[in-house]
Amino acid sequence: MAVGVQIIADLYGVDEDLISDANKLYPIFEGAIKRGRLTEISSDYYQFQPKGASGVVLLAESHLSFHTWPEHGLVTLDIYTCGDPESADIAFNYIVSLLRPESVDYKKLNRGVKVEENVKVIRPQQIAIS
Amino acid sequence: MAVGVQIIADLYGVDEDLISDANKLYPIFEGAIKRGRLTEISSDYYQFQPKGASGVVLLAESHLSFHTWPEHGLVTLDIYTCGDPESADIAFNYIVSLLRPESVDYKKLNRGVKVEENVKVIRPQQIAIS
Repeated sequence: MAVGVQIIADLYGVDEDLISDANKLYPIFEGAIKRGRLTEISSDYYQFQPKGASGVVLLAESHLSFHTWPEHGLVTLDIYTCGDPESADIAFNYIVSLLRPESVDYKKLNRGVKVEENVKVIRPQQIAIS
Repeated sequence: MAVGVQIIADLYGVDEDLISDANKLYPIFEGAIKRGRLTEISSDYYQFQPKGASGVVLLAESHLSFHTWPEHGLVTLDIYTCGDPESADIAFNYIVSLLRPESVDYKKLNRGVKVEENVKVIRPQQIAIS
């Protein structure tokens, strides 16, 4: 069992102008949330100067986030959803269809996979806080 | 090269009361941001009913996010930073020291690793948007 799935994708070769401007990215990510039938609680989009943007959207089903590096044509994207696992795929495919990257590094992780096992698999390191 | 590092951690066996209440979690994550010398742009913390919380913090260096499942003693945590890679470790260690999980599933990913290579490694799938 898992509590949710997380798509972790780095999109390369994306149009520099498109990912320079938070105002151009806003409708893409909001559209993805709508297509995926996800429930937005809040969102923050931020414009970097002279170019580049970041956004985080808190969802009832977890979150979506992105960060752009226009000078590299790069968007790093996370879509994490609990509930219907297809929602993340739908949102991701919509974003990719609009950003049109030349290539994508894609991972999908299951989160919280040990909630039913209740097994201590990895002990945390001893932590020293300065 | 990478543009940033992302810690992806699932924390098991965390005290149910502590992770039920967004007000108890707020100082832990804000403290982690301060300890990691990260720059907060905005934050959203959300209280689920009857219990459970989510939070996303947009950082100048990327973002921090968490989601809790008190009934499972579970916190899923992401800390993604560009800039000083130790910042994520410092923030993570601080959070773990206060949440005191029984066990942790931990991954650290490098993001945007191909920005200097400019190689098309993985082609995106053909995308059909309904």
